[in-house]
Amino acid sequence: VPEIKMGLRDQKKRRTRDALTVAALRLVDERGLDKVTVEEITEAAGVSERTFFNYFATKHDALISDLTIEDDDVRGRFLAVPPTVPTLDALLIALAPMLQAIQDERDVWLLRLRVLGDNPTLLIEMQACSAIAEQELTGDIAARLGIAADSGYAQLTAAVAGTAVRVALMRWSAGAGRQPIAELVHEAFASLSAGLNHPFDKEET
Amino acid sequence: VPEIKMGLRDQKKRRTRDALTVAALRLVDERGLDKVTVEEITEAAGVSERTFFNYFATKHDALISDLTIEDDDVRGRFLAVPPTVPTLDALLIALAPMLQAIQDERDVWLLRLRVLGDNPTLLIEMQACSAIAEQELTGDIAARLGIAADSGYAQLTAAVAGTAVRVALMRWSAGAGRQPIAELVHEAFASLSAGLNHPFDKEET
Repeated sequence: VPEIKMGLRDQKKRRTRDALTVAALRLVDERGLDKVTVEEITEAAGVSERTFFNYFATKHDALISDLTIEDDDVRGRFLAVPPTVPTLDALLIALAPMLQAIQDERDVWLLRLRVLGDNPTLLIEMQACSAIAEQELTGDIAARLGIAADSGYAQLTAAVAGTAVRVALMRWSAGAGRQPIAELVHEAFASLSAGLNHPFDKEET
Repeated sequence: VPEIKMGLRDQKKRRTRDALTVAALRLVDERGLDKVTVEEITEAAGVSERTFFNYFATKHDALISDLTIEDDDVRGRFLAVPPTVPTLDALLIALAPMLQAIQDERDVWLLRLRVLGDNPTLLIEMQACSAIAEQELTGDIAARLGIAADSGYAQLTAAVAGTAVRVALMRWSAGAGRQPIAELVHEAFASLSAGLNHPFDKEET
């Protein structure tokens, strides 16, 4: 059956790609970004340099790019949630499968977050991706509510939601991934929905 | 009286410094970051290259650094607000003089924000500063409430407050500074305090 054959071939491609990413992350984690070549990555993964460039344009690409995130349809899921659901709740629904995938690949993600934290150059490239994601989310939030794309509400909510996910990932990484990332993101979003009131604030008012 | 003499000397230093910053921003705005030299900046400001390096370590420094912000004691003011005042309200009180200073230097700030937006390299250097400011604010929020410095509440609130100020500056810049930056920051913080509920969300619930 052709579909199964394609499925197997895709699985093999995915395994090769993942092996290259893991090899790249491990070597950079050990030696530092500037002390690892594509040749060394391909040797560690047991493939040719030509194969590497079938999957990645650059060394950095192999460290940053993740198909679990890139192929994931967060935006589609978000726009599919009825607009009567508050924005932050709709975002949590849309993010859930992606967060589960990150938790399932915990070791690679913890390694990636460590490598990003140690290498500002990579962090900067990630931030460029985040800026694009923030613009897209701003448009989606506005479209979902039928409000102007340059509305302050859409801009602020998109930026703050991205920040909340970033903080949750920092905390997940600091805790070696023991508390599920989905839980940490839910906690952060609950805190946002509650107006960032600290329990002590509530006691006082 | 010695104090007045010092005051005048400091004023002169400040004017020289500001003239260098404005010259640097204008030239980079016109020609692009890589097409402006320190020599051209000092010529435009009418001072020697040696004078430039009395004030700034690098060309980038002259574009990014701003004494109104750097000398401002936001942290001191924040820690002085009684802990019974909710965190976001205390931050607004602490930020007010700085926001007024930005509004007072509107033209330079709008120029700086445009130059930053056009030059990712500079934006990245600013983000490094933001990361440090976020860590400091996390510690201050925790200290003010007497909670652990790695508490999720302090981390999230510091990161989100920084994001809200960034979004307000983006909107201020997009509106050519006509709506006061203090108003835009207040709007953003009010939206955070209200749990990022869109008016439409409220209608539905």
